[in-house]
Amino acid sequence: MHLIKLIIQYDGTRYCGWQAQAVRKKSSHNRRLKPSIQQTIENALAILLKGRVKLTASGRTDSGVHAFSQAAHFKTASFLGPDKLQRALNALLPADIQIANAQYSPSDFHARYSTKSKCYRYFILNQRHRSVFLQRYAYRCKFRLSVSAMRRASRFLVGRHDFKSFCARGSNVNSTVRKIYKISIKEELLFATKIICIEIEADGFLYNMVRNIVGTLIEVGRGRFKPRDITVILKNKDRAGAGPCVPAKGLF
Amino acid sequence: MHLIKLIIQYDGTRYCGWQAQAVRKKSSHNRRLKPSIQQTIENALAILLKGRVKLTASGRTDSGVHAFSQAAHFKTASFLGPDKLQRALNALLPADIQIANAQYSPSDFHARYSTKSKCYRYFILNQRHRSVFLQRYAYRCKFRLSVSAMRRASRFLVGRHDFKSFCARGSNVNSTVRKIYKISIKEELLFATKIICIEIEADGFLYNMVRNIVGTLIEVGRGRFKPRDITVILKNKDRAGAGPCVPAKGLF
Repeated sequence: MHLIKLIIQYDGTRYCGWQAQAVRKKSSHNRRLKPSIQQTIENALAILLKGRVKLTASGRTDSGVHAFSQAAHFKTASFLGPDKLQRALNALLPADIQIANAQYSPSDFHARYSTKSKCYRYFILNQRHRSVFLQRYAYRCKFRLSVSAMRRASRFLVGRHDFKSFCARGSNVNSTVRKIYKISIKEELLFATKIICIEIEADGFLYNMVRNIVGTLIEVGRGRFKPRDITVILKNKDRAGAGPCVPAKGLF
Repeated sequence: MHLIKLIIQYDGTRYCGWQAQAVRKKSSHNRRLKPSIQQTIENALAILLKGRVKLTASGRTDSGVHAFSQAAHFKTASFLGPDKLQRALNALLPADIQIANAQYSPSDFHARYSTKSKCYRYFILNQRHRSVFLQRYAYRCKFRLSVSAMRRASRFLVGRHDFKSFCARGSNVNSTVRKIYKISIKEELLFATKIICIEIEADGFLYNMVRNIVGTLIEVGRGRFKPRDITVILKNKDRAGAGPCVPAKGLF
């Protein structure tokens, strides 16, 4: 058996997230079910490898979340090399999912357990009018944000902390302690449009953690919280004390 | 009467270009007619100003071409101020056309005749697989391009020249002489994707001139033309001697 590692890029707008949603019987007839990223790639792999394989990703993503480079792996007995596989997969896949890289990896590699860190980016459009080019990729915040206040606040989040205040309620995990290695908050030009880009790197993330952190930093940026309030929010371990969860579409 | 100047941003994918297309009787039933940018904004203005006005742009754009900031102006007797007008217009306009700025301008301002220079940008995606995020905004060229060769070639285009070799055939203009002030060719990261961005500033452009120049620079980049060949192409004043016209979707 060969182990092949894929680096995947996708625009999550049309998808229900990485993993297939369990179909709820009651609602299935009145909502259009979106496909999952995983299913879509597994279906293409099944055609190429003449049999189904299980594709394991570094983690699950929510509906509407995008990926610049998400790792995944699968095992196959096929002799189809990674280069040919990548080209054939990309031809079969829809234009909003593409394989940026495919390569053989050691048999003990695991897209989830071999992960050393994960990095998320969130795009905020800080202007009154909509962005013609970033509609699907940035959350628009009409209030003028102080980037320097947001930066000061972010320093209190870096390091090993209990991030319970930033974890979606009802989430079921053993520990809510994570280590954030780095948060960078930059103003950038994207498609001639000024955006605020927040990048967070950590050893792992709790459910909705990035979106809850960004929502809280926005509260700081607009003056509702002071940067120092972050220490209190962390200490209280209460989701209700932090800021709201921002939309999925700004998350990569 | 007040003269109001607008700075307009649009994603041209869904439109037939700036100006409405003359409906050809024969084909009108079998092709879906796309709306024009001008019509769409004029319709919104008619609602707000309670009467039709004529919107004049700095120039026409082709179907599929986008705009970061295109100037246009109109005259109105309405006392609706530019700020309120901008907000109301943006609320009425579809998400792929937005007004980035609106202001009063002197009555002798003319979006077309007051223009001192125009600047176009063209995005090339130089990789084998499609870009998930730039599908609508970049032309994909699979051949590996030498940016330094393209830069050397571009220097022969800067200055006042007869650009007949880069003007679409059948175009009806008095003079094909234009002055290019600047061409910059840069490799940039856009949505975590490496692109080649070509920016051309000139006192004016002939029909398809940017797309024909970019098509020719790509021929240089992939080694079919030498940088020096540009001087011969210019001198021959023959469209057939230059490179092909690249697709509209990469042009802003």
